[in-house]
Amino acid sequence: MRNSRRSQVDPFIVMDVMQAAARAEAEGRHIIHMEVGQPGTPAPEGARDALAHAMQSDAMGYTVALGLPELRTRIAKLYAEWYGVDLDPGRVIVTPGSSGAFLLAFTALFDTGDRVGIGAPGYPSYRQILRALDLVPVDIETAAENRFQPVPGDLKGRDLKGLMVASPANPSGTMLGEAEMRALIEACAEQGASFISDEIYHGIEYERQAVSALEISDDVYVINSFSKYFSMTGWRVGWMVVPEAHVRVVERIAQNMFICPPHASQVAALAAMECEAELQANMEVYRRNRALMLEGLPKAGFDRIAPPDGAFYVYADVSELTDDSRALAADILDKAGVAVTPGLDFDPERGGGTLRFSYARATADIEEGLARLARYMAERGAG
Amino acid sequence: MRNSRRSQVDPFIVMDVMQAAARAEAEGRHIIHMEVGQPGTPAPEGARDALAHAMQSDAMGYTVALGLPELRTRIAKLYAEWYGVDLDPGRVIVTPGSSGAFLLAFTALFDTGDRVGIGAPGYPSYRQILRALDLVPVDIETAAENRFQPVPGDLKGRDLKGLMVASPANPSGTMLGEAEMRALIEACAEQGASFISDEIYHGIEYERQAVSALEISDDVYVINSFSKYFSMTGWRVGWMVVPEAHVRVVERIAQNMFICPPHASQVAALAAMECEAELQANMEVYRRNRALMLEGLPKAGFDRIAPPDGAFYVYADVSELTDDSRALAADILDKAGVAVTPGLDFDPERGGGTLRFSYARATADIEEGLARLARYMAERGAG
Repeated sequence: MRNSRRSQVDPFIVMDVMQAAARAEAEGRHIIHMEVGQPGTPAPEGARDALAHAMQSDAMGYTVALGLPELRTRIAKLYAEWYGVDLDPGRVIVTPGSSGAFLLAFTALFDTGDRVGIGAPGYPSYRQILRALDLVPVDIETAAENRFQPVPGDLKGRDLKGLMVASPANPSGTMLGEAEMRALIEACAEQGASFISDEIYHGIEYERQAVSALEISDDVYVINSFSKYFSMTGWRVGWMVVPEAHVRVVERIAQNMFICPPHASQVAALAAMECEAELQANMEVYRRNRALMLEGLPKAGFDRIAPPDGAFYVYADVSELTDDSRALAADILDKAGVAVTPGLDFDPERGGGTLRFSYARATADIEEGLARLARYMAERGAG
Repeated sequence: MRNSRRSQVDPFIVMDVMQAAARAEAEGRHIIHMEVGQPGTPAPEGARDALAHAMQSDAMGYTVALGLPELRTRIAKLYAEWYGVDLDPGRVIVTPGSSGAFLLAFTALFDTGDRVGIGAPGYPSYRQILRALDLVPVDIETAAENRFQPVPGDLKGRDLKGLMVASPANPSGTMLGEAEMRALIEACAEQGASFISDEIYHGIEYERQAVSALEISDDVYVINSFSKYFSMTGWRVGWMVVPEAHVRVVERIAQNMFICPPHASQVAALAAMECEAELQANMEVYRRNRALMLEGLPKAGFDRIAPPDGAFYVYADVSELTDDSRALAADILDKAGVAVTPGLDFDPERGGGTLRFSYARATADIEEGLARLARYMAERGAG
């Protein structure tokens, strides 16, 4: 048997770093993990308690494809609480993580060969899922002066059927303001392109609140997840909000592709939404870590960074040091014992000159990691 | 925004039955559910205990995309236990249910426009997922004398790039014997078509053991799940075994499409594999229910049925009663208070003359359902 052409997706370059880190740890070395894109914290205690309780009395069979009605209602309420948006729960679709939402959105909106714009740097799986569906990802090289976000002019002449944005973005942590988001939505509407907003890092914001595309228009797809702010990566539960006229279409795809999101994860997610104290305690850690990073990285010599508005990453321009971020990441792991992500995963063109540092883990790890990075750079400078 | 062409998948016809049943129940009527495709039992107690325990100490973040190594190893051992097959755990891929495995298999093997044979009657989502990926499902009308399974002659002149079989099958419950399975695998190999074996109902067998395609060839995709025998539908965890040379390709697709299967479900699934006593107690119920159905359905007047080798369904030819199984199912629900599935979901051409009866639930429900069906048919005959 042969594999299909559409199956030839790129490997994650960071996997090499992670495997090398695992080998080093197996040999007894202590590694600081600044490559990981997930919280070190578990799901909130209230979420785990709710599931432990539900498992005793409920068979936890399939739910309906769109998700538990009470969870859809609670998610709709979040839009009132966070953004002052009045959202019909009937438009909320619970999904198997934001990953499942990408599959649903791309399938619901695009046909074979359709061109879909994605920002570079950006989350690598957008590109790979689009390719696996025989759609055409179109990299939009974003500019530092636009804080690594697309602008309406980027749509011109590209014949896009859709545009995917992320705010706060991975890897840069930058956000689209209300005016910038509105301009992009209007530009898409003008040329008949669908607008998809990945809002997975909402709730993890530092200076100002993230803007949801739903504050601006109902004619958009909005994707979010319980993975980041709610600290539930491994549970694979997220959601998507779609225009009312699209609900039935997405429901049918979801019935067939997934049957339903994991029942246990839905029960835990519903309870997690009432665990604000614990979630805000996590946020305090991210805030402290971010402050340490913004002070420590420049001191160490990584001074071409943009302060992240949200998420838990710093994207650094290291093009003065290297045009091979993969080799630099390997060297940092080898000499400093710090795992970081080469920018090539996020930007195939320019990522040879960038690194992503994650500060999602414990503060002590961040302090130790920054100290190691400072020593590494000092030795490198001396070498 | 407009929806894509590929998103126009058929609705599940049984959904109308389920909604009508829910309305009747809301009005206070008592409905017997013979339409459902899932056990009424929860995950084994040992599975739930293991998860409750793990949640206390483990952050349960992402696992690696291929699944927890100890779960892959344990699944490989199952092939030794059940079939005497020595399987490399490196070929086992843990998936988000068999649904996730279908997405991975179809993406890994087929390109836009490729024709993939599926048996009719058969599980409706094969067809819909293929369409959503812009592949071409090719219905193979199976014959009662072949026990509703495809035969090598069905492949001729159809230009198939793949063939999907299910044994035991849904909705018929029939199995492919070793010789029949081998003949199909060889016929596929001859014309360069990939062979995919859906083995989700393995373990739920009555007269003889189901044959795995892995007993015959390593050059096949085998899909299974914890949903049915292990009674874990809502947990969305299954697995797939692929040729060694395909593992890396499938891993990359899985990393991007799913990141990983639900961590909590993987922990529960691993423990479920040691809960044989509880699972065999479930099997005793299915055996009793099956015997009741094989006696009661013909007595009631549904006498054109093939005894199912496995799974928990009986597929009945009702073409002497109707060519509109949808209307017949609605009438049975209305007059008898029994929900059943119209055959149109499984066979768009001939399903107007068939019904599927599930016997997955408690024995008392089966007894009551059969009594109601007998009264309904008696009144219908008298009418």
